[in-house]
Amino acid sequence: MRTIAVIGATGYAGAELVRLLNGHPGADRLALGSTSKAGESLEGLYPNLATKAQAGAASGRLLLVSPSEAVDAADVVFSAQPSGCAEPLAARASASGKLFIDLSADFRFGGDEATYEAWYGKKYAEPALHAAAVYGLPELNRQGIAAARIVGNPGCYPTASSLGLFPALRLGLARREGIVIDAASGLTGAGREPSRSTHYSDAADSVTPYKIGSHRHIPEINAALSAMAGDGVEAVFTPHLAPMGRGIVATIYFQLQKPLTAAELREAYASFYAEEPFVRVLPEGAVATNRNVRLSNYCDLSLHLAYGGKTAIVVSAIDNMVKGAAGQAIQNMNIALGLDERTGLAMLPPAF
Amino acid sequence: MRTIAVIGATGYAGAELVRLLNGHPGADRLALGSTSKAGESLEGLYPNLATKAQAGAASGRLLLVSPSEAVDAADVVFSAQPSGCAEPLAARASASGKLFIDLSADFRFGGDEATYEAWYGKKYAEPALHAAAVYGLPELNRQGIAAARIVGNPGCYPTASSLGLFPALRLGLARREGIVIDAASGLTGAGREPSRSTHYSDAADSVTPYKIGSHRHIPEINAALSAMAGDGVEAVFTPHLAPMGRGIVATIYFQLQKPLTAAELREAYASFYAEEPFVRVLPEGAVATNRNVRLSNYCDLSLHLAYGGKTAIVVSAIDNMVKGAAGQAIQNMNIALGLDERTGLAMLPPAF
Amino acid sequence: MRTIAVIGATGYAGAELVRLLNGHPGADRLALGSTSKAGESLEGLYPNLATKAQAGAASGRLLLVSPSEAVDAADVVFSAQPSGCAEPLAARASASGKLFIDLSADFRFGGDEATYEAWYGKKYAEPALHAAAVYGLPELNRQGIAAARIVGNPGCYPTASSLGLFPALRLGLARREGIVIDAASGLTGAGREPSRSTHYSDAADSVTPYKIGSHRHIPEINAALSAMAGDGVEAVFTPHLAPMGRGIVATIYFQLQKPLTAAELREAYASFYAEEPFVRVLPEGAVATNRNVRLSNYCDLSLHLAYGGKTAIVVSAIDNMVKGAAGQAIQNMNIALGLDERTGLAMLPPAF
Amino acid sequence: MRTIAVIGATGYAGAELVRLLNGHPGADRLALGSTSKAGESLEGLYPNLATKAQAGAASGRLLLVSPSEAVDAADVVFSAQPSGCAEPLAARASASGKLFIDLSADFRFGGDEATYEAWYGKKYAEPALHAAAVYGLPELNRQGIAAARIVGNPGCYPTASSLGLFPALRLGLARREGIVIDAASGLTGAGREPSRSTHYSDAADSVTPYKIGSHRHIPEINAALSAMAGDGVEAVFTPHLAPMGRGIVATIYFQLQKPLTAAELREAYASFYAEEPFVRVLPEGAVATNRNVRLSNYCDLSLHLAYGGKTAIVVSAIDNMVKGAAGQAIQNMNIALGLDERTGLAMLPPAF
Repeated sequence: MRTIAVIGATGYAGAELVRLLNGHPGADRLALGSTSKAGESLEGLYPNLATKAQAGAASGRLLLVSPSEAVDAADVVFSAQPSGCAEPLAARASASGKLFIDLSADFRFGGDEATYEAWYGKKYAEPALHAAAVYGLPELNRQGIAAARIVGNPGCYPTASSLGLFPALRLGLARREGIVIDAASGLTGAGREPSRSTHYSDAADSVTPYKIGSHRHIPEINAALSAMAGDGVEAVFTPHLAPMGRGIVATIYFQLQKPLTAAELREAYASFYAEEPFVRVLPEGAVATNRNVRLSNYCDLSLHLAYGGKTAIVVSAIDNMVKGAAGQAIQNMNIALGLDERTGLAMLPPAF
Repeated sequence: MRTIAVIGATGYAGAELVRLLNGHPGADRLALGSTSKAGESLEGLYPNLATKAQAGAASGRLLLVSPSEAVDAADVVFSAQPSGCAEPLAARASASGKLFIDLSADFRFGGDEATYEAWYGKKYAEPALHAAAVYGLPELNRQGIAAARIVGNPGCYPTASSLGLFPALRLGLARREGIVIDAASGLTGAGREPSRSTHYSDAADSVTPYKIGSHRHIPEINAALSAMAGDGVEAVFTPHLAPMGRGIVATIYFQLQKPLTAAELREAYASFYAEEPFVRVLPEGAVATNRNVRLSNYCDLSLHLAYGGKTAIVVSAIDNMVKGAAGQAIQNMNIALGLDERTGLAMLPPAF
Repeated sequence: MRTIAVIGATGYAGAELVRLLNGHPGADRLALGSTSKAGESLEGLYPNLATKAQAGAASGRLLLVSPSEAVDAADVVFSAQPSGCAEPLAARASASGKLFIDLSADFRFGGDEATYEAWYGKKYAEPALHAAAVYGLPELNRQGIAAARIVGNPGCYPTASSLGLFPALRLGLARREGIVIDAASGLTGAGREPSRSTHYSDAADSVTPYKIGSHRHIPEINAALSAMAGDGVEAVFTPHLAPMGRGIVATIYFQLQKPLTAAELREAYASFYAEEPFVRVLPEGAVATNRNVRLSNYCDLSLHLAYGGKTAIVVSAIDNMVKGAAGQAIQNMNIALGLDERTGLAMLPPAF
Repeated sequence: MRTIAVIGATGYAGAELVRLLNGHPGADRLALGSTSKAGESLEGLYPNLATKAQAGAASGRLLLVSPSEAVDAADVVFSAQPSGCAEPLAARASASGKLFIDLSADFRFGGDEATYEAWYGKKYAEPALHAAAVYGLPELNRQGIAAARIVGNPGCYPTASSLGLFPALRLGLARREGIVIDAASGLTGAGREPSRSTHYSDAADSVTPYKIGSHRHIPEINAALSAMAGDGVEAVFTPHLAPMGRGIVATIYFQLQKPLTAAELREAYASFYAEEPFVRVLPEGAVATNRNVRLSNYCDLSLHLAYGGKTAIVVSAIDNMVKGAAGQAIQNMNIALGLDERTGLAMLPPAF
């Protein structure tokens, strides 16, 4: 009997974890932690989660308790709270040797406290925990994740961006200078709280760039790309809000070290990701889009060339709530627990 | 030189008045009143309203002042504040004989204070003003509006519903019992303030009924229909939020007193509205939809029969911000000022 | 080893069957039949269905063959072709005693050939097959389905409408006269083929009624309601296209035989459906919406009263592709095969 | 009395011209040409264009005639047919000295027949007409347009792209190498004919790049940018379909010759466009979006920096049907006829 805690269960990432863990054979019981709603039922906020169709679905199965209570009850802890809250929970979980997977930015920067502080305005209270944490991008750090007790689950934009560039940087196909990442996200990326930018009458029927040059995912993207390239990368990254629910579509531009044919570029990517269960390199003529990965843990990549093979354009598409958050977190749990990495994540995306 | 005041200019109805009056030849100057934003410029909230393309467009043309300052500067006053605020402004305007057109519910119930109090929780402070007010549905009360100094501009749902039923009730074609009005509104109807129901991730990709049996437009609809029928009407009305920006589509069901053919029903409606500049009775085979009236002052009506002509189904479509609010208010102003009723309202709707 | 055939796999209902059967433990192999695309792979049309994440997912697993070839290879046959095509397939399947579940209208009318012919323009070629067929609404006909070899899977609108009225009609709460069903469907209901009404620039940002008084689901709705009431019912039904992907939201109006309180009405419905795994009667204050049932087999019902309990308003929401098509078909298969009815259908809907 | 012809009136660009010319004081009469629908009324295809609200609006005002008949009846000719059709009409109009404005690509390449042939697969039949034609971007070629009799109206993407880069290239702020233009278009850009990519269930709720490296606007963009820079420019351009009706949002990346502050960059752009009636350079902190320019002839530009002022990011937003097609064509007509350039184009965009 394994109990899984989800802290911050009332936010979108937390609720998505609950939904996905509901069908995970390794999640026997859930312990749901919430700072603001302890004592209530998650079904009150998310009536979609009420179940009649599952054998033995007990009333009260989605009761919210305090975060510490949830941590103590669990064997594995997911934290889906806003950045800045994870250290005490990680300390509590680690003290009893529990696997701790954080979906905020708090454990994504490892030993680089300076960058974390510059972008998130906070120092590390527990540097040792950060030193032990692993950046949870399985395609990059699978072995480290398998051995980790603290995982910093990547951001949604960094996941889509990194997977789109990993083969090109690791294989030395791309020049490190002049990389441009132009990405669109659906509105779920903005979370559950209403705001001006998520107001239907502002968000619908329009595309709007935001936080140009100042989005907090910039240092995370650069850190991941630098790890892949083995040297410093500074990419230009511009996020956009697009009128869709789920999905990130990143259109990534880079210069090739030497011109390649489309077939050569595709073959390089396809070989690189051949054994990856959640990265699909699309055939020639196809273009990646969030529509084909929605509600799944897939990252779709399509590869294109311009100007005679000097410039490569890679389109990378994920579901921001799944491969960009809850699904990848479960993938990390599976790896760290020694389960088949695909457990609970084999769902096919609905295209319509 | 005529100055037009718009009180509550920062809300959607107010901002729409500003946009439409911008092209109205009888509106030489605007005086914009706001309780919360006096001293700011409306362009700060609505960058779309910044103009370079109009001759003589002065900087500062959209400065917000206090409501009373705006009233005093104006010849005609539109008030687009929430219900419950209009009486003091109406008193101030009336004291100097200015035309006052209120877009809230405050002056829609005339002498029927009991109904107003029951649904809006407030007594009349100035009964004499209400006794003098006219319900501003031009198709029903054109002569009264022409003579009025206070106009209660109808709600959006009541406008669509009333125009869909007026010929059937006035001509005695419809039974008064058993009328069902099932209506969908776009999200602009919920106004500018973000909320749970206007959060993109809640509103998009779904249709949701709301305030079933309790929407405040119910008594207004019944009052208008009763005035049309010459006797009491109690319609069942259910509003829905639909994922669109502008528009109301009301599907209206009623029993015919005696069976009619489709041609007879259409002829009755077409004759009834023949001289109305803003009501289009569609030809056979067409179905009314908000798409064809968006951003215009039109009300489109299509007529249908079921079960051998015993039941009629009328579809009524308007733009909730124009014929359902700001456009109809300008139509009322035109009538009350003796201008051509169509002045400033001749724009054709874009269908795409 | 059980092989399941899906005929008409390239349409939306067929592709949805493939997606859902992919996770069904009783579906060991698929045989995919297509008249027009035999020899191709379904992944060419639906790249979302390509899988890397499933153990043993063989290349060529989604090869399309001819319909008869698929029937012959299978133990159970789903047919998702357009109405008018099912009889020969049903005959072929029945000849070898295979379960045949048809998602078109062909087997929904049982012995009532006259109604089928009047609305679908075709006589029965095989009356005996129709006499043996069962209308596949599990909540109404579970025992019949368990014994059947041919199931006529209900239409999407009839499913939502029938489930919203079943307790009221069976328990004698509702008057049979004057029922109005006003329903909105998402665009997936219009299928995969592009057309004027599914063109984004026509369909987006608008609500449009269609086929008023002439939709082919009218006789099916009336037949189901009459079976529930034990007497003839003629409901007025108006479908609308709404700008959403999946979902039907039916707002249903009927007169109560005698006034009820909200609690009484809810209790009647809740008791009636207490053991139904896929019908959720919502608590007071909640309103059913497609958002909370998307991608699940649930039907959500919310109950409302108007005018002192004389008129009831029931909102019924389903996913048109799941409970309205492929999910209900699998539910029928489960029943007919003696499996747990919920097998492969326990997924929770994502609300965002 | 001036008669304006619109050839290809049934397409979106043509219908938008009809809608905008309806309120243009210099357009006394319209002559509507259509190859496929001559003899019909445009209102049959676009019921939104039926008018009751305009004084003297005659029945039959929107009758479609043959293209040549429309040309002969007119003083000014707009052609909005697909590329490849304009030469014979241009010849016919020019023979009688009529102003001819073509919204297709046929007259955008002037003397560069090689590029036109390479991308459009057709040689010039009338080279002299092309030699006399002017590329109709008023901000670049106002004087030439004033003297022209044939105007090649720019494409939508080239308009947004060019206006976003014009000051930077003309003033020598930008390096000509490494320019990336990442642009999203609404679905109206795909025209009126239903297709797979415009099918609601494919287009909604997703962002999809298309024609990467092969879009026909690439050579037009490069030609315009080269004219602005005074030297050859090869930009990388990627278009995306986004789920919105109208609008293009282009996010443009370039390297600065030397680092600038945000204020310096903004001042350079604002001064450059100070007298342009339809280009709005947004204040600091604002971000351009299609929402604020919809249904208007404005181009909004916002300016941003990354990495200490080495990289500039310009966001350029237009309505693809107005500044990107019909509105700019009318602007060109105004210039060529010596009218105030803003005539008929002063409408303010609705933001909601």
